[in-house]
Amino acid sequence: MKILEVQLGERAYPILIGECLLDDAALLREHAAARQVLIVTDSTVAPLYLSRLRAALADCQVVEAIIPVGETSKSLANLSRLWDVLMANRFGRDATVIALGGGVVGDLAGFAAACYQRGIDFVQVPTTLLADVDSSVGGKTAINHPGGKNMIGAFHQPRAVIADVSLLATLPERELCAGLAEVIKYGLICDAPFFGWLEARLPRLRARDPETLIDAIHRCCAIKAAIVGRDEREQGERALLNFGHTFGHAIEAATGYSEWLHGEAVGAGMRIAADLSQRLGLIGPEEVRRIDRVLTAAGLDRQPPRCGAGQALDYMRIDKKVKAGRVRLILLQGIGHAVLTGDYADDALDATLKAYFD
Amino acid sequence: MKILEVQLGERAYPILIGECLLDDAALLREHAAARQVLIVTDSTVAPLYLSRLRAALADCQVVEAIIPVGETSKSLANLSRLWDVLMANRFGRDATVIALGGGVVGDLAGFAAACYQRGIDFVQVPTTLLADVDSSVGGKTAINHPGGKNMIGAFHQPRAVIADVSLLATLPERELCAGLAEVIKYGLICDAPFFGWLEARLPRLRARDPETLIDAIHRCCAIKAAIVGRDEREQGERALLNFGHTFGHAIEAATGYSEWLHGEAVGAGMRIAADLSQRLGLIGPEEVRRIDRVLTAAGLDRQPPRCGAGQALDYMRIDKKVKAGRVRLILLQGIGHAVLTGDYADDALDATLKAYFD
Repeated sequence: MKILEVQLGERAYPILIGECLLDDAALLREHAAARQVLIVTDSTVAPLYLSRLRAALADCQVVEAIIPVGETSKSLANLSRLWDVLMANRFGRDATVIALGGGVVGDLAGFAAACYQRGIDFVQVPTTLLADVDSSVGGKTAINHPGGKNMIGAFHQPRAVIADVSLLATLPERELCAGLAEVIKYGLICDAPFFGWLEARLPRLRARDPETLIDAIHRCCAIKAAIVGRDEREQGERALLNFGHTFGHAIEAATGYSEWLHGEAVGAGMRIAADLSQRLGLIGPEEVRRIDRVLTAAGLDRQPPRCGAGQALDYMRIDKKVKAGRVRLILLQGIGHAVLTGDYADDALDATLKAYFD
Repeated sequence: MKILEVQLGERAYPILIGECLLDDAALLREHAAARQVLIVTDSTVAPLYLSRLRAALADCQVVEAIIPVGETSKSLANLSRLWDVLMANRFGRDATVIALGGGVVGDLAGFAAACYQRGIDFVQVPTTLLADVDSSVGGKTAINHPGGKNMIGAFHQPRAVIADVSLLATLPERELCAGLAEVIKYGLICDAPFFGWLEARLPRLRARDPETLIDAIHRCCAIKAAIVGRDEREQGERALLNFGHTFGHAIEAATGYSEWLHGEAVGAGMRIAADLSQRLGLIGPEEVRRIDRVLTAAGLDRQPPRCGAGQALDYMRIDKKVKAGRVRLILLQGIGHAVLTGDYADDALDATLKAYFD
């Protein structure tokens, strides 16, 4: 097991990354137990892992809430339902919410915990690679609004993250690949050596080799923790973590947040961002080829929907990075070197959007 | 005009306390203007002051949301409506929400701002004495849940508070008295000299003398800022600010959050807390008499509903100060000296509850 201590302000918490952690009752009791525990999970994960987690928390008053699987569950209705469950069971300020699931479960459960009595403890047990490397660090929680993804939310740091790579054994192939998109992202934005490491190890990651997964998750969380530690409230550098996301959001919005997995959209979004970076002369064709190869090796090769360049731009404008009306973009100046900028030629963006969305 | 700088962590903000501030466009533009502004107000305040605030913000894109007056507006439905308004107008992360109103408007608007895009700027323009002295400091925002008051919320500090005592001219007498309950509370919990100052000045405060109001508001905000500065997340000392509130919540819950104003309930709650403090031998009859006299001089003499002691205790258990199942209470060890404790004789509490609620 590897342990990463995330230091954020006055609060620090551990990310425990290893095998078979869900069966380690002592570990769970140390990091995830309270007198009152609400486990939030989804309809796919519940039959696989809920009873094991419950068994490890036998001493607590455990209540569970099972939400339908999928992005549409990040809704105000489900958020309200979680608050109702907490209230109905008279949970106090010292209760803990455990998110057993992927990003959807974590975002929803974390937001419920952030606002219940103005903030109660929250522990994550990710069951997807994407949640392991993305939601584990940063404290972002949110629900979607009909007008945009993650538009309503809070920053709420977990008390602990228990990243058990054994849980990834049941992860559908598509979801594994979607998670790899975020893994690749870390290399692209700020860690060229890690990108090189990945180029050699995608087959092993796709075969779910536990040690390789533990190494990759640890590296991604360490990168994210360093960035978030320098910029907790996303005033600057942290925005780089959204590399590929602005274009990805457009893809997700154009397809009603239902056909594409978030990571798949980010994967396609990174290709689009690389294309624009090349058009602007920031990177060369060899770098674009390396990026394309890695994404393809990760199983990420879906074509964006042909919703029209204008429509795509419209969706992008809803992005939280919009400042004074201008869409700011994260572009690559090289592999391992991303920049956030509103200073780009509109006709290059237009050409990129036409190439992918028209 | 008096200015109090509230220093909380990395963020500081000013509370501006004076006369005719709403007509000072330069002041408002300095502290409350952004490119996009959502003004949240209620159906009582809107016809009185909304046009004046709008006039001062003529340069901004101003959108308004008018909620029905009253505590029941602190609902998930209204919160959701504010998010819809922000989304529909494509407000960005650099937008500002201004709360023009009392505590209900401030709590709702502040919570909407806290969660919109995970937190946008928030400015308060209180129109009640209670909001001046209570909501101005501390960053507490919330909505009510059918099962309890302020159960869902966030800590979100404002960028500025503009406390214009001229706006109190239109405040109904009952609301003024309710605000005085919180003013008296500050003296009782930690400032005996201020309590003495108040004993001599309640007639002037009830006559709404601007200078006396400015002095009282300044003192209350300074006291609260000092306490909150030492305990931003309500781990300890800050709980003292809830003096009278646990009993008050029981009164409000027993009357469906509709018949009593919050401050009226706090006023009655402070009498009940003083009674219990005397039964426990913490204070003597002379102190209880001084407290009763001041509350009566402030127009606070309603009798709690006869809902039954058991029912009242049940409502109290929902309070956020419950720890490990035990209701902790704030009691007086003297005028100007409150303590939070779970260590009290149950039969004394029972006798107090029977005296007031049976």
